[in-house]
Amino acid sequence: MQEIWKKIDAHAKQWTKEAGGLLVSSLKDSLLIETKSNASDLVTNMDRQIEQFFIEKIQSTYPNHRVLGEEGYGDDITSSDGTVWLIDPIDGTMNFVHQKRNFAISIGVYHDGVGKIGLVYDPVHDELYHALEGEGAYCNGIEIPKLEPGSVSEGVVAVNATWLTENRRLDHRKMAELVRRARGTRSYGCAALEIVYVATGRLDAYITPRLSPWDFGGGAVIVQEAGGIITTFAGEPLGLVGQSSVLVAKPGVYEQVIEYVKG
Amino acid sequence: MQEIWKKIDAHAKQWTKEAGGLLVSSLKDSLLIETKSNASDLVTNMDRQIEQFFIEKIQSTYPNHRVLGEEGYGDDITSSDGTVWLIDPIDGTMNFVHQKRNFAISIGVYHDGVGKIGLVYDPVHDELYHALEGEGAYCNGIEIPKLEPGSVSEGVVAVNATWLTENRRLDHRKMAELVRRARGTRSYGCAALEIVYVATGRLDAYITPRLSPWDFGGGAVIVQEAGGIITTFAGEPLGLVGQSSVLVAKPGVYEQVIEYVKG
Repeated sequence: MQEIWKKIDAHAKQWTKEAGGLLVSSLKDSLLIETKSNASDLVTNMDRQIEQFFIEKIQSTYPNHRVLGEEGYGDDITSSDGTVWLIDPIDGTMNFVHQKRNFAISIGVYHDGVGKIGLVYDPVHDELYHALEGEGAYCNGIEIPKLEPGSVSEGVVAVNATWLTENRRLDHRKMAELVRRARGTRSYGCAALEIVYVATGRLDAYITPRLSPWDFGGGAVIVQEAGGIITTFAGEPLGLVGQSSVLVAKPGVYEQVIEYVKG
Repeated sequence: MQEIWKKIDAHAKQWTKEAGGLLVSSLKDSLLIETKSNASDLVTNMDRQIEQFFIEKIQSTYPNHRVLGEEGYGDDITSSDGTVWLIDPIDGTMNFVHQKRNFAISIGVYHDGVGKIGLVYDPVHDELYHALEGEGAYCNGIEIPKLEPGSVSEGVVAVNATWLTENRRLDHRKMAELVRRARGTRSYGCAALEIVYVATGRLDAYITPRLSPWDFGGGAVIVQEAGGIITTFAGEPLGLVGQSSVLVAKPGVYEQVIEYVKG
């Protein structure tokens, strides 16, 4: 059984590296940008091209696998049965457009709802974060050490400033208490990278009220293999259907931060 | 006259690159960390070593120049007369310790209060941001295009989540209005990098209520040469003595953001 996953993993890695190369080349060209529902939601021609690249590869190699992708070219997924690929061709589109860095390709491969393979690739810095269920987490082939327990007061928490303003999803007064308690806060605008930064210990926690499965699918496998914890704000496992709140943290920090977000 | 500055500039570049190499090597060693006044204010043995490295080079090569450095091994500066080097050996110490990236060496050389040379070096990504007064701004030798006017609603603003909580320095309600108006917000925890990210257009504005001259000295020369604007929250020029609030932005965005911070 595990041999099958190693073969799928090798394909996923190869396609992700190839897609990353396409993204980096595209940065030299000017980008055709459209706006979706609002100005914050930029979509570029590259988002679509990369998603279609993966779908063609997957459909021709693994015709019984299903694909759930941000751009909607994949399948209509209403259950987590069978093998499902969660694909975000460019996580952090605003960074891609404004910064030409700090974005990632995120790939998660799940079987009957269980994360088997996670890949998050930062092509500008050529950093490939990777995990296969039960085999540990890696960055560019080097094993990421297991996370040691920590505390908020000695930790760096990633949270966007938006969630410190009055909003419908999080109690901004509790967030203010958390920010005051933490050693520092950061915000990078790329969920997939913020999740793997928790895996590598660069961040101690990351909080965001609304992600789709393609945003966290790859990172979730990686951070759990590194010994981190990822759940909804209610402490429940993340699902592959619909949107979720996401809290990801190292042990110790997780138990402290969930008190501020559980509602 | 300009020839003298080119010679000083060549030395500053060479020493900065050399110091960056020392920092990157040190990341492989374990770091001796002490806490200064509080847990957020980490100082490492490398901060001190790098500052002393610069002071020795400057004192032996330019004995009549003065040095103002974060670690306090330089001169006691009470006026901006003559030639003053503003040195932050590691801007973003918390990132240096927690992330082993997203920190910079910042060097500004000022003459009678006027910025002549600015250097901000990100040694992990080997990116050297540089400007010589009147000669444009550069990253790794490639000229940074002059900033075009922008607007907050299409802009990415860097502000730490701390300033969205009640505090003595900024009206957090006004900050909340600004965050809601902006396309997005980010926070990197390294003032020198956040200033040069405005120069390159990766950020459209950066707001921080309290910086020391060594934090902004290098970046200020660079962002102004790229066509950006840097002042206190009151719209006044930054001084070389004491701490200042700092607003840095591209044209258009600057005029909008100052309305939220001017008090």
